[in-house]
Amino acid sequence: MASIFTKIINGDIPCYKVAETEDYLAFLDINPNAKGHTLCIPKKEVDKLFDLDEVTYHGLMEFSRQVAIAIEKAIPCKRVGLTVIGLEVPHAHVHLIPLNSMEDARFMSKTQLDPKAFEMIASKIASFL
Amino acid sequence: MASIFTKIINGDIPCYKVAETEDYLAFLDINPNAKGHTLCIPKKEVDKLFDLDEVTYHGLMEFSRQVAIAIEKAIPCKRVGLTVIGLEVPHAHVHLIPLNSMEDARFMSKTQLDPKAFEMIASKIASFL
Repeated sequence: MASIFTKIINGDIPCYKVAETEDYLAFLDINPNAKGHTLCIPKKEVDKLFDLDEVTYHGLMEFSRQVAIAIEKAIPCKRVGLTVIGLEVPHAHVHLIPLNSMEDARFMSKTQLDPKAFEMIASKIASFL
Repeated sequence: MASIFTKIINGDIPCYKVAETEDYLAFLDINPNAKGHTLCIPKKEVDKLFDLDEVTYHGLMEFSRQVAIAIEKAIPCKRVGLTVIGLEVPHAHVHLIPLNSMEDARFMSKTQLDPKAFEMIASKIASFL
């Protein structure tokens, strides 16, 4: 069965899109640790980051770097953190999280945002790409 | 002043070394989230991951990939997570953490190990490189 992220790639589930290339997609995490929390994924559905072929892995890291630099410009924060865990959705994904404290990196306290706020954040980050 | 990681690179502070190249070093986190928790750093001292020049960034991600694959072979776990936070030590570093649950990714509950255990873990990971 297609992962939830493949459904997003295919447009079967909507997302707040930040960036897209032929091989990668960036969109806002719908349950963010902090405002601007973004997911970067390869369109190729592979569960584990370190099972990705080398080209896809490095392409994902370059795509994530570019999106992170845009987030740093768009969202006030001390720095953008990068995290890959992957115990929940079996489709490799990079979390880019604007960090102001360690709490923002812990996936415990979540930030509530309404659809309008998500749209504004996504388009603001996209404007720096 | 040199970062604590530059002091480790220079040999002024000891570490449990996992791997070393001309430009990168991997060693065990002395306050690990889980057994096998490893740090990968560029020898070039730059605070933020996304301030690294492109060549150093991608070199760090390739070095981390190779070390992560060795950790997966050496340490029983569901997968190896990758995290860059950097709010504490101003020298970019990649955490590679053997994950069995979300708790292992949260930097809250820590694992106690004695020097002999650290040495055995470092040399076991190194044996797969």
